[in-house]
Amino acid sequence: MNAFVLYGRNDLRREQRPVPAVGPSAVLIRVVRAGICGSDMHYYGEGRVGDFIPQMPFVLGHEISGEVIECGTEVSAFRKGDRVIVEPAIPCGACTACRRGRYNLCGSMKVLGSASALPHMDGGFADFVVVPSRACFLLPDSLSYQEGALVEPLAVAVHAVARGASVTGKSVLVTGAGTIGEMTLMVCRAAGAARIGVTDINAFARGFAKSHGADEVFDPAAEDFPDTARAFVADGFDIVFEASGAAPALKQGLDLAARGATVVQVGMLPPSVTLNLGLITSKELQMVGSFRYANSFEASLELLTNKRIDVKSVVTDVFKFDDTQKALAHAMGNGEALKVHIEH
Amino acid sequence: MNAFVLYGRNDLRREQRPVPAVGPSAVLIRVVRAGICGSDMHYYGEGRVGDFIPQMPFVLGHEISGEVIECGTEVSAFRKGDRVIVEPAIPCGACTACRRGRYNLCGSMKVLGSASALPHMDGGFADFVVVPSRACFLLPDSLSYQEGALVEPLAVAVHAVARGASVTGKSVLVTGAGTIGEMTLMVCRAAGAARIGVTDINAFARGFAKSHGADEVFDPAAEDFPDTARAFVADGFDIVFEASGAAPALKQGLDLAARGATVVQVGMLPPSVTLNLGLITSKELQMVGSFRYANSFEASLELLTNKRIDVKSVVTDVFKFDDTQKALAHAMGNGEALKVHIEH
Amino acid sequence: MNAFVLYGRNDLRREQRPVPAVGPSAVLIRVVRAGICGSDMHYYGEGRVGDFIPQMPFVLGHEISGEVIECGTEVSAFRKGDRVIVEPAIPCGACTACRRGRYNLCGSMKVLGSASALPHMDGGFADFVVVPSRACFLLPDSLSYQEGALVEPLAVAVHAVARGASVTGKSVLVTGAGTIGEMTLMVCRAAGAARIGVTDINAFARGFAKSHGADEVFDPAAEDFPDTARAFVADGFDIVFEASGAAPALKQGLDLAARGATVVQVGMLPPSVTLNLGLITSKELQMVGSFRYANSFEASLELLTNKRIDVKSVVTDVFKFDDTQKALAHAMGNGEALKVHIEH
Amino acid sequence: MNAFVLYGRNDLRREQRPVPAVGPSAVLIRVVRAGICGSDMHYYGEGRVGDFIPQMPFVLGHEISGEVIECGTEVSAFRKGDRVIVEPAIPCGACTACRRGRYNLCGSMKVLGSASALPHMDGGFADFVVVPSRACFLLPDSLSYQEGALVEPLAVAVHAVARGASVTGKSVLVTGAGTIGEMTLMVCRAAGAARIGVTDINAFARGFAKSHGADEVFDPAAEDFPDTARAFVADGFDIVFEASGAAPALKQGLDLAARGATVVQVGMLPPSVTLNLGLITSKELQMVGSFRYANSFEASLELLTNKRIDVKSVVTDVFKFDDTQKALAHAMGNGEALKVHIEH
Repeated sequence: MNAFVLYGRNDLRREQRPVPAVGPSAVLIRVVRAGICGSDMHYYGEGRVGDFIPQMPFVLGHEISGEVIECGTEVSAFRKGDRVIVEPAIPCGACTACRRGRYNLCGSMKVLGSASALPHMDGGFADFVVVPSRACFLLPDSLSYQEGALVEPLAVAVHAVARGASVTGKSVLVTGAGTIGEMTLMVCRAAGAARIGVTDINAFARGFAKSHGADEVFDPAAEDFPDTARAFVADGFDIVFEASGAAPALKQGLDLAARGATVVQVGMLPPSVTLNLGLITSKELQMVGSFRYANSFEASLELLTNKRIDVKSVVTDVFKFDDTQKALAHAMGNGEALKVHIEH
Repeated sequence: MNAFVLYGRNDLRREQRPVPAVGPSAVLIRVVRAGICGSDMHYYGEGRVGDFIPQMPFVLGHEISGEVIECGTEVSAFRKGDRVIVEPAIPCGACTACRRGRYNLCGSMKVLGSASALPHMDGGFADFVVVPSRACFLLPDSLSYQEGALVEPLAVAVHAVARGASVTGKSVLVTGAGTIGEMTLMVCRAAGAARIGVTDINAFARGFAKSHGADEVFDPAAEDFPDTARAFVADGFDIVFEASGAAPALKQGLDLAARGATVVQVGMLPPSVTLNLGLITSKELQMVGSFRYANSFEASLELLTNKRIDVKSVVTDVFKFDDTQKALAHAMGNGEALKVHIEH
Repeated sequence: MNAFVLYGRNDLRREQRPVPAVGPSAVLIRVVRAGICGSDMHYYGEGRVGDFIPQMPFVLGHEISGEVIECGTEVSAFRKGDRVIVEPAIPCGACTACRRGRYNLCGSMKVLGSASALPHMDGGFADFVVVPSRACFLLPDSLSYQEGALVEPLAVAVHAVARGASVTGKSVLVTGAGTIGEMTLMVCRAAGAARIGVTDINAFARGFAKSHGADEVFDPAAEDFPDTARAFVADGFDIVFEASGAAPALKQGLDLAARGATVVQVGMLPPSVTLNLGLITSKELQMVGSFRYANSFEASLELLTNKRIDVKSVVTDVFKFDDTQKALAHAMGNGEALKVHIEH
Repeated sequence: MNAFVLYGRNDLRREQRPVPAVGPSAVLIRVVRAGICGSDMHYYGEGRVGDFIPQMPFVLGHEISGEVIECGTEVSAFRKGDRVIVEPAIPCGACTACRRGRYNLCGSMKVLGSASALPHMDGGFADFVVVPSRACFLLPDSLSYQEGALVEPLAVAVHAVARGASVTGKSVLVTGAGTIGEMTLMVCRAAGAARIGVTDINAFARGFAKSHGADEVFDPAAEDFPDTARAFVADGFDIVFEASGAAPALKQGLDLAARGATVVQVGMLPPSVTLNLGLITSKELQMVGSFRYANSFEASLELLTNKRIDVKSVVTDVFKFDDTQKALAHAMGNGEALKVHIEH
């Protein structure tokens, strides 16, 4: 089979590899769609994500949908021909975090298409991928493979919204309108947020947000910001989702948070940030981290299947599998790209 | 002014009364719309609501919108000509329940249009009504008086949904599709419930629910119920809103609740109910009472103003003020009446 | 080895059996202490627990502590000679309930010493028992085997308290002072409940409660109850733990609950109960089921090891293993028995 | 009467003033005990607290107990001779924050002994003080005036613990062992925290903590810290209370927090702090501000009255009223002073 294998910074090689063997509790999936995530870009462009340098080489790609080709001997939940999606972060299932239902905090997590431990779990930028069956979800017939490959980033947004206070009838600010920010906006809208503002320095991202549920969008670099934000919500926002990972955005979020508000930190901040954290006390805020997702695929699929949310349009570009490198370059270099997909 | 005054069971008299005096912190409102609530019907038809027998005579009506005619000397938040709505249950503001934010549990509550204490708080089935200014909310220009008079029952539904677990992405059952049940359905839909079933023995109510956000409706008296319900949600409902106050509906709700589910009791049950409450333990349910509302008018207004919800259509009938008695009779006797409004 | 095997109602036979084989992920434990639970008594005395009739024969006993004799080939967390206790309800680890951390609601639960599914999981009224290693916890050196065998019922109480609202600084009522009620009292006391009342019709149980942390005890059959309870807490109890499973106790709990209170149902109620459930709405209560425990052994062990709680004294009687039948008869027939233990 | 009036930095003057007049809903209290708070010291030593510069002159002191001398004409809850304490931060009772029960976030708060608004609310470093009756609580006979004057700082700790996750059976770190840190320790101990570590650079404070419920104390400046902390709790602390307001302490708290932990920020941080806030996301923490208290006096009084907690010993020094200036100097300059009291 063909696979795109990362050997180092800017060194992604197309290789012929044998189709991987299927263990007793695993399934072999023919990849149909794979999305490019920010972490794929970081691995590709920098050879790392933040402090984390993976064991290389390995195959990138963890936002995938596809067709079951073969099932391990102990697999009963799926069969050949099933359309499936994959929850790519696979917890141990036995530690305290897992037993408590916060399995995203499992200390022995293995992630498809990352390489945090040996043996590798190669990812989905390949013709085929092997996945533990318990990591798979059936893709309902009414959802396309494109939608299926969007469930993983949607789950990030669903988890972030679940981590915060209820948004129904409340005012919400989303700082940062990349894919996760746009999806957080969409989930907030679907969950009944009454007044949603979105900030992004990128005009395309703002425009997308405005046409996908934002009541107001703001350029956080504009001189009249945050006055315009306060004109929109005089007493501050009830709930802030910081989805950029940029310190200035968090600063603005803390400033614009209402007294007693909840600030959900979704974006990964740099290792050193300078802020007025006294606001957490003086406004008695709750600042809540949101890391990946736990028990979020079920709700994401339910929202999609029952047409409570439509995320298809975040896919701005689709490349052929052969053009995976071009797809990565486009995702990284184009201000009008949100989610870039690779199709077989 | 004209007022409809309740003297006893089936004894509602149209009277000429002086326009009430405006205390220093009160406002005088010219009533434009008044809704008929179930409690109005109970007072009218039975002279009581459950065990509670009010001091009579008094003026019924607590779902009102209108125009400010005069403000007390200490009132600064409103002025003559303002369009307003009223939160009719007025807590003391000082007891433990009030200080904790659960002011709907205030032991010294006074309710407009009820008569739980002396001196009376006459209600809104009158040309004018006097209300403490802190019980008033400005009605935004974009909302009609009809919508304004619907905020009170909407607040009941908003509070019920807030009392339960988050509905976003979850399956919901609403038992009983009177006005409160229909509005609960609408709020659940606005809040992103992924799969909503509604039960009612009345075909009109089911039809209304089906065309206002229910994914499936059920006749709870049908032989194939609850099989059809289980076909809709195999593992049971994540959240149940019991909005009928009928014991058999609660029984069905407990049976159809998923393990670990939340059951919100909104309807007022009769004083003696026989049930298999062992289900609360064996399925580890949370059964949560919801009483009136607290801090719910703000969210209700936000949802309406920002067009997250449209409740206008629950008004099935509008009568002229002169026909208030007819309006009450219609509300009580007609299976195709949901909310009946009185207009001036 | 010797084992006490239940063949039917009142038919418990001492048998010689081979020591069970140890699977790759299991451990073989030499039982040192075993507690007798209410369910053991029901199985023995009635051949069933409520509606549930187990597959017989099987070995009773699920509150056990002992010594590891042999470890399966894949077991790394324990070794021969370790002192251990057992969490006897073993969930599948993969279903939605398990993934959400509410593994006590697992639909595929297997319970040591019960017989809900084939193949059996024989319990601990035997010289040896085989247990999956993931169900074992190391017993700290500072805790005796007696204390170890009390962790299971303590976990029931810890879970019940965790299911309710925080008791710190609040008033608490515990209805029913059997072992679980007494332990719930102890956990509430350890958790800072400011004012604790306990009801039981049994004078011995009341006396035990009074000397183990209850501020006041009440005979619920006394004529002046609930007046004495209201004299103790005028506005009602903030949190009620119904630990008897008796409908009249729940009735009293609902009556004595403060407005806005939480009622935790720990005892298993009979299948039909007649109550004024309107109180759930009119007082806006939360009624919360508590079923077994989830993630409660860790906290229970921490409380014991750090001497925040002392539960040893709930063991009122210790019988030799040979006298297991006598132990059961004593537990069932003696009003001054709380927890009865069997020692090897 | 005599009063100590602050005119500016280090300018506290003893003055003769008329006994203040008692409004209709107020009470006049003869002060018996008054505690010195950190904010009193900041006002005295710096003429400000952080950014806030009060209107001067005014009388300091807000931790007071005393005897009712006179009641306003509308006061029914108290009478002459009652022993009372005062909740000194007095909210408006009508705004959204107040209605939601988070009245500590009231935007119109007036604070006894601070001077945030005109007309002044003079504080308790005086022979008499006038207070709205709704700000008073009856001091039970079993509590001394000394204990009464400690309820205010205890309420800060009770609120902080209520803001976090339940501590029962959990591991807790308190960073900073001033009065609030020591009281937080005591409340955590009373609330069943299983393992409590406390850090302070002051050896006296550590010793006090060790003898008042801490299982382990740490010098955060020691070279082997945080290794010693990790030896105490290998996987990190479940809940951290940052009670110092020092950025390095928060840094250590974030580092030592377990995955999924809650960090309660009680101390007021400086306006600019540099930290690795990425930990909030990668460990999925909840960082929760705690500001003053809301609905905490009731629980604090219950804990004291029922002897669940004993806080008397935090008073390390008692000065006569005439020596108020010496008392302030002592509180500010002595490493072995925790709470300094002034008695009449």
